[in-house]
Amino acid sequence: MPWALGAPRILSDKGGELCSLRYDLTVPFARYVAMNGITSMKRYQIGKVHRRDNPSKGRYREFYQCDFDIAGDYKTVAPDSEVVKILTELLDELNIGDYEVAFHIATINHSLFFVLLLLILCRLINFLSQIKLNHRKLLDGMLEICGVPSEKFRTICSSIDKMDKLSFEHIKREMVDEKGLDVETADKIGTFVKQRGRPLELLAELKQEGSKFLENKTSWPALNEMEIMFKFLENAGCIDKVVLDLSLARGLDYYTGVIFEAVFKGATQVGSIAAGGRYDNLIGMFGTKPVPAVGVSLGIERVFTIMEQQLQKDQNQAIRATETQIQVSVLSVDLLPLAFKLASACWNARISAEYMLHKNIMKHISRAIELRIPFMVIVGGNEIEKGVVRLKDVVANKEEEVPLSDSFKALKREEVTLSDFAEEIFARLHSMSS
Amino acid sequence: MPWALGAPRILSDKGGELCSLRYDLTVPFARYVAMNGITSMKRYQIGKVHRRDNPSKGRYREFYQCDFDIAGDYKTVAPDSEVVKILTELLDELNIGDYEVAFHIATINHSLFFVLLLLILCRLINFLSQIKLNHRKLLDGMLEICGVPSEKFRTICSSIDKMDKLSFEHIKREMVDEKGLDVETADKIGTFVKQRGRPLELLAELKQEGSKFLENKTSWPALNEMEIMFKFLENAGCIDKVVLDLSLARGLDYYTGVIFEAVFKGATQVGSIAAGGRYDNLIGMFGTKPVPAVGVSLGIERVFTIMEQQLQKDQNQAIRATETQIQVSVLSVDLLPLAFKLASACWNARISAEYMLHKNIMKHISRAIELRIPFMVIVGGNEIEKGVVRLKDVVANKEEEVPLSDSFKALKREEVTLSDFAEEIFARLHSMSS
Repeated sequence: MPWALGAPRILSDKGGELCSLRYDLTVPFARYVAMNGITSMKRYQIGKVHRRDNPSKGRYREFYQCDFDIAGDYKTVAPDSEVVKILTELLDELNIGDYEVAFHIATINHSLFFVLLLLILCRLINFLSQIKLNHRKLLDGMLEICGVPSEKFRTICSSIDKMDKLSFEHIKREMVDEKGLDVETADKIGTFVKQRGRPLELLAELKQEGSKFLENKTSWPALNEMEIMFKFLENAGCIDKVVLDLSLARGLDYYTGVIFEAVFKGATQVGSIAAGGRYDNLIGMFGTKPVPAVGVSLGIERVFTIMEQQLQKDQNQAIRATETQIQVSVLSVDLLPLAFKLASACWNARISAEYMLHKNIMKHISRAIELRIPFMVIVGGNEIEKGVVRLKDVVANKEEEVPLSDSFKALKREEVTLSDFAEEIFARLHSMSS
Repeated sequence: MPWALGAPRILSDKGGELCSLRYDLTVPFARYVAMNGITSMKRYQIGKVHRRDNPSKGRYREFYQCDFDIAGDYKTVAPDSEVVKILTELLDELNIGDYEVAFHIATINHSLFFVLLLLILCRLINFLSQIKLNHRKLLDGMLEICGVPSEKFRTICSSIDKMDKLSFEHIKREMVDEKGLDVETADKIGTFVKQRGRPLELLAELKQEGSKFLENKTSWPALNEMEIMFKFLENAGCIDKVVLDLSLARGLDYYTGVIFEAVFKGATQVGSIAAGGRYDNLIGMFGTKPVPAVGVSLGIERVFTIMEQQLQKDQNQAIRATETQIQVSVLSVDLLPLAFKLASACWNARISAEYMLHKNIMKHISRAIELRIPFMVIVGGNEIEKGVVRLKDVVANKEEEVPLSDSFKALKREEVTLSDFAEEIFARLHSMSS
């Protein structure tokens, strides 16, 4: 589900055909389900979406969303729990080392959605995240209890939704002065929306004898639904990431049940990085029968923003623009075929390599330093004469001449086994870095 | 580079702003390089492109291209060779088994472009592919030699380009009757464009004493360039995939040097699956200085079409819609929390699992058969009473009751270590399939 609906882009093309660029992946999914008469479906999707408005810093008019949705009548909150479970898995995996990634990929994967994210996010970062969770009907019941007229539910919700950015005093003034709520009602809302805590504990409080929710017909079923869901999440071992937060109010025109939002609590301020909820009426709007659904959407650009700032802070340097491991440097044009051969040997052995031709060795070295390429293979006239190549550890600024073993000598002939060279390089890299 | 330029989609939005959906990734790349004053850059890109026209079967108005381009003045054909080398790597990797994929991913990768394609294409298929290669200046020289007036170069080239679909007799009639070439000139063209063969061998023929190309100022440098390039490709160990084909004429308005096209020669007819070439003037059109460039574009939908038909032919069945390994089936709603717990245990162990609730066991089994889910974990009232779960091998139609080991018993309590169950499942899967 979209976290903040900007205007969609409506366009007309040369043939006068009206078309629009999708502003999220949920509405196209709902249309797809409805128009194909599907009654049950799970799907993930990664794709670009478009917004017409002028976005604030860190947001874009064209950006990616990564969605997972479950449509179908499951009669229970199992799908809601599964969606939140997957969101916790994603957030957990953001805090991983390179070794683990390689291991995970080699095993059977939960889904491709997951693998793609893993690949994209394979950096070790310290990721502080939390999932705020609430229920639309609990919110509605709360507003009823406080005495808010039903026609003001939506506008009051949008005030409540600012609780993470503004003080309650500020929000109270907005509700009273701008939205015409009386002070007593606003204060009642205040006592409710300040409540946040561990899901099962806070839920137990809300269900305690004397709680106003017990008598409210709207919120009572919501409390029961959430209790079952929290048990599911406990069973799945992911309840620790979840916080029940009565001030979470987002996107109320869409949502019909549980709503949630993943926030990053670190130094980088990007707002929510993922959000979702249950939307039981959307698919029915596009077809003949209602199909309940629940889903989540992750904004990958915001995750990148966090990761980049984290890396910059931790390592005090920018992210490398290339993944090149070896720069093959030759000093004259007649050595270019050899350079290409050496680079090909690296590529065939899955080592990221580039070749470069320049007569000035300093140009080679400064480029490797600038791009933080860790190793260089240098070949000039001297090396050819001596029958060696120079292997340079750029970071340590160490060099050694690699004597022409049989495999290196073979490089001069056409019938060389290129993997010989790659093995040699591998072995050298290994011994140099150890 | 685009393989077949349909009309781009020009649109105007609500604010009257004119915008267009990109019809390829090359032009946006050229703009990016030009407008940022970049003089040297390698980049890969995977993204959607759009065409306004009504596409023929197997083509779409919205589809993906996977591009790799090298911009910059390298003074040699090394970049051209690198692009073709990468294309051969991609085609080679299409013919791979699952084990190898896992291995490759765990090692250092040539580029993410490559990894993504690997992940997408990790199916064992028998992939017959070939790269046809030619040079724009060789073509121009050939047409000069045959006596074609220069203003007819382009239209004659588009006739020649049909050599892979139509007989030369047909093309000759088109050139003579429709395009006003005299019969003698057309016949001369015929003797040239029928030539195709191993790159270095055919090149040697073209350079033999008495060859008309030797005296032609346009084609002579092209022959030399290609000779150097073929040596590079030989060094890189990928010349076997390349065929020099004098009838390849594609996209001549763009290309200024070497051109190539990867074709699939199997039963599935999709035309070219990748194509590219050198385009030295495009970037200069968007900026103040010319930057030579060479690149390739792969059409992933066509590769999918081939893979799907191949799999259907080989296995006589459709591709599975899900990757689910285990269906956790429970027969009553009170067992749903247990089902979710068992599924979570699988997910945590990276086993693709789904849970399902239905009181009729046959519904569970028929769903597993329909979706070709290999294993089921079945729990009903009987199993709970006996303290077992039933593990079913759906393909072999074998069942066994798994006695409640300590770890299974623990599943009833909250404090269970879920990984115990996952280990149990892993072990069972292993022993059942061996």
